[in-house]
Amino acid sequence: MDQLSSVVSRLQMVSTSDYSSVVSMNLFVALLCACIVIGHLLEENRWMNESITALVIGVCTGVIILLVSGGKSSHLLVFSEDLFFIYLLPPIIFNAGFQVKKKQFFRNFITIMLFGAIGTLISCTIISLGAMQAFKRLDIGSLDLGDFLAIGAIFAATDSVCTLQVLNQDETPLLYSLVFGEGVVNDATSVVLFNAIQSFDLSNLNTSSAFQLLGNFLYLFFASTMLGVITGLLSAYIIKKLYFARHSTDREVALMMLMAYLSYMLAELFDMSGILTVFFCGIVMSHYTWHNVTESSRITTKHAFATLSFVAEIFLFLYVGMDALDIEKWRFVSDSPGTSVAVSSILMGLVMLGRAAFVFPLSFVSNLMKKSPTDKVGFKQQIVIWWAGLMRGAVSTVLAYNQFTRSGHTQLRGNAVMITSTITVVLFSTVVFGLMTKPLIRLLLPQQKAAISMVLSDPPTQKSVTTPLLEQSQDSEADLGSTPLGNGIHRPGSLRALLNAPTHTVHYYWRKFDDGFMRPVFGGRGFVPFVPGSPTERSVRQWN
Amino acid sequence: MDQLSSVVSRLQMVSTSDYSSVVSMNLFVALLCACIVIGHLLEENRWMNESITALVIGVCTGVIILLVSGGKSSHLLVFSEDLFFIYLLPPIIFNAGFQVKKKQFFRNFITIMLFGAIGTLISCTIISLGAMQAFKRLDIGSLDLGDFLAIGAIFAATDSVCTLQVLNQDETPLLYSLVFGEGVVNDATSVVLFNAIQSFDLSNLNTSSAFQLLGNFLYLFFASTMLGVITGLLSAYIIKKLYFARHSTDREVALMMLMAYLSYMLAELFDMSGILTVFFCGIVMSHYTWHNVTESSRITTKHAFATLSFVAEIFLFLYVGMDALDIEKWRFVSDSPGTSVAVSSILMGLVMLGRAAFVFPLSFVSNLMKKSPTDKVGFKQQIVIWWAGLMRGAVSTVLAYNQFTRSGHTQLRGNAVMITSTITVVLFSTVVFGLMTKPLIRLLLPQQKAAISMVLSDPPTQKSVTTPLLEQSQDSEADLGSTPLGNGIHRPGSLRALLNAPTHTVHYYWRKFDDGFMRPVFGGRGFVPFVPGSPTERSVRQWN
Repeated sequence: MDQLSSVVSRLQMVSTSDYSSVVSMNLFVALLCACIVIGHLLEENRWMNESITALVIGVCTGVIILLVSGGKSSHLLVFSEDLFFIYLLPPIIFNAGFQVKKKQFFRNFITIMLFGAIGTLISCTIISLGAMQAFKRLDIGSLDLGDFLAIGAIFAATDSVCTLQVLNQDETPLLYSLVFGEGVVNDATSVVLFNAIQSFDLSNLNTSSAFQLLGNFLYLFFASTMLGVITGLLSAYIIKKLYFARHSTDREVALMMLMAYLSYMLAELFDMSGILTVFFCGIVMSHYTWHNVTESSRITTKHAFATLSFVAEIFLFLYVGMDALDIEKWRFVSDSPGTSVAVSSILMGLVMLGRAAFVFPLSFVSNLMKKSPTDKVGFKQQIVIWWAGLMRGAVSTVLAYNQFTRSGHTQLRGNAVMITSTITVVLFSTVVFGLMTKPLIRLLLPQQKAAISMVLSDPPTQKSVTTPLLEQSQDSEADLGSTPLGNGIHRPGSLRALLNAPTHTVHYYWRKFDDGFMRPVFGGRGFVPFVPGSPTERSVRQWN
Repeated sequence: MDQLSSVVSRLQMVSTSDYSSVVSMNLFVALLCACIVIGHLLEENRWMNESITALVIGVCTGVIILLVSGGKSSHLLVFSEDLFFIYLLPPIIFNAGFQVKKKQFFRNFITIMLFGAIGTLISCTIISLGAMQAFKRLDIGSLDLGDFLAIGAIFAATDSVCTLQVLNQDETPLLYSLVFGEGVVNDATSVVLFNAIQSFDLSNLNTSSAFQLLGNFLYLFFASTMLGVITGLLSAYIIKKLYFARHSTDREVALMMLMAYLSYMLAELFDMSGILTVFFCGIVMSHYTWHNVTESSRITTKHAFATLSFVAEIFLFLYVGMDALDIEKWRFVSDSPGTSVAVSSILMGLVMLGRAAFVFPLSFVSNLMKKSPTDKVGFKQQIVIWWAGLMRGAVSTVLAYNQFTRSGHTQLRGNAVMITSTITVVLFSTVVFGLMTKPLIRLLLPQQKAAISMVLSDPPTQKSVTTPLLEQSQDSEADLGSTPLGNGIHRPGSLRALLNAPTHTVHYYWRKFDDGFMRPVFGGRGFVPFVPGSPTERSVRQWN
């Protein structure tokens, strides 16, 4: 029996070098499964969503681990920025770009940019100044000017992932595109701003450095966007040229996945914003590449990307929930719980104030520019936009860790307080605001649901129900199916096609350029050469 | 400009902590894309396959990196057993189980077990004894009895991944199921054997320890299989019970992926064979779970699993190609190139002899047990089985690293020689034998292709062409579509249904049990409750 047990113990050595990491992975995968099942059971619930479920399960698991380990640790994996920025964020943002309603997004492009760039700057300034004033009277240790500016950037980062879960692209398309589009630009702005603040010589501020910052931001924005567009077009071109009449689903899917990931990694390599790059890569891929592949590839990519994004999101919230109980961070706080509560409340208030300070004025500016009354953002919608963007999530957490810890450990009192306050704000905003968003939308905009469900051309039994992410996945087809120009496919009786008729000249010229040059080169709906009996034939037939 | 550049350099710090790892990942992802594109272009070529392409590209990249880095390094990532056993192997083996022709596999179950378990033992013994005799005269440093036994286990491990690429499930279904089924059992046997040898007290060998080894092997085999079956059934039960009439594609796909991975990790946790577990989990999932989900989920899982497996395979061969040029290993060899060539040639010869020593006798035994002449394995087919299993791949490499290196470094002369010889054997067998398998099959079994393509019920335009992995993916439907019992769905005109009629009583009772108990509980083709207008309706209609 000695030999048997030693055989068994050696087996483990070959299989994997670290036993405890296997235990952690088992538990983590099992928890992910539990989140999916429980999230499904709570689906009908009007308050809950998958993020909150994962967060709550994460906190509960954290408590259990804390008790089992005798108060030593509360989480299974060591959180690293790499894990977040290299593995979890890319699929989430890519999928958002891949399945966003392109028409809505580009119609509101100026408003989105206003909210995302100018709005974030306003929000950041207000939070920084407010924190500077408010924290003077509290005893929270030493924080310098750089720390306060960093606090502004940290708490200006909207959680676009959570927004995806509470807003519904089919029920409130305008709000969804505004809040989510803003979220993506805002993520990029916050990261750029944060880095700029960390590296700036704060003792020597002047006008030229402000212009440098602005120039740097504009350069990053355009370069990142172009990189994403070029990678997307390259994938479309390769698949169109190589796979003509000789389709192979697995190669196409693999190539799309790898090139999407490559765009993100290239952006990281060239020190650009990977978030923006992969978002625009997703948009271009859904507009061109997706139409060059077989019907099986289309279904596979649509759902595989959505699934990857879905799992990454749950993973993220599960981790944030577990990490919230990390004992080291709370040691300093336990001495003076009042201070910590005060700091968190002040920050939460500043977040709300900072967001209000740009949503309402910028909505007013945006409404001035719009001609048609259907495009204008009403006051009730403005309230929803303000509310839905109040959640703070993983980006804030990662930035706070970066500023206030040295490799995950908090030594100074001021730093520890800021970390715990960030966690408190993230938990509070995600759970409380997240829970209240669905009822709030139902209260403020009760007519939306009925109106839109009439317009949808998919039969309700065919589409998956209730989670925003899943409904979204119907979009790529629906969105493209209603294009009134180009390929002569006009879906009769579709109200949306009439509503979305291109009134803007920019859109008209884009259509002309797209149909005259882009689609013949890169493929796209109606422009992939027709091969009788090929997989594309069936899909064209089916969708008419 | 100073500030600008420092902003840029700080950005990288937030985004990722290690710049060189970003460069490596970019290059690796780009190489994977290149392999897919080049593999597609060479698809029509009768010699090449994806593995060889990846291997060649890997070697070329290794040469370039070697030149660029001035002879310091030839690979981008440090190879770890974890990377192989935790991330790359599970998707490959799971997909193989998910898309294997179940009927063929279970009809030949006894033959497969004979080849996989007894055959590996015979092969291992012959290689060990042969190496012991042959290496005496060569000056290759100190190798003890344990090393020689380990050499036997290392070179008895057939590369089932490469087999998937050279044999075609639709053209040669019997050979495919035999060689691939053997490969899976063989992988498990080799790993168990290797661990047993590493931990055995070699100075004290007796009969009881041999029986312990046998008992341990049987326990591992049955426990691993049961774990896979139970996890698969659990996933089927959860999806059937929870998702009834309220399907959601992304949740189903996520749950299937996570539970498949969980089965592998659980096996690792309990010190069992994850390879066997995940293989049987794949079989059960394709028989029950796959039929409980929406049609979109079916298409998505089929192609997503195949794609993941495809990418993991290319990754593996790309890495093996790069790693082959690692300079440290070749330092000792350059002193006496003759010895190294001799050792590699001897090992290659022993691999061929060891395989011949069990394929032909065991085929004879297996033929004695079969009643119908169509089930018997002919002599030409035996040659193909012998030939297709001669390739050595990643499992051999990993085991060799484990035995002959300490954390990737080779200090002793004997160890260095063994590592380089393993690499030589892997490269030589994969490239040379791999290149010659397709022509050999065409030479020995010319009639197979024409006969089978008549039987296939899918129209040839609908299915993806030429790579075995892709053709395989059509199987789950075709295989299940031709079940003559159970749900009354009999595809008229299908020759295969007649050929595969259940002659064996075991199979008949299994069908009765499956239809009477298993399917009503766990779901499966024809046993998922019919909901009018639900996604399942469409799929049932379509497949009749």
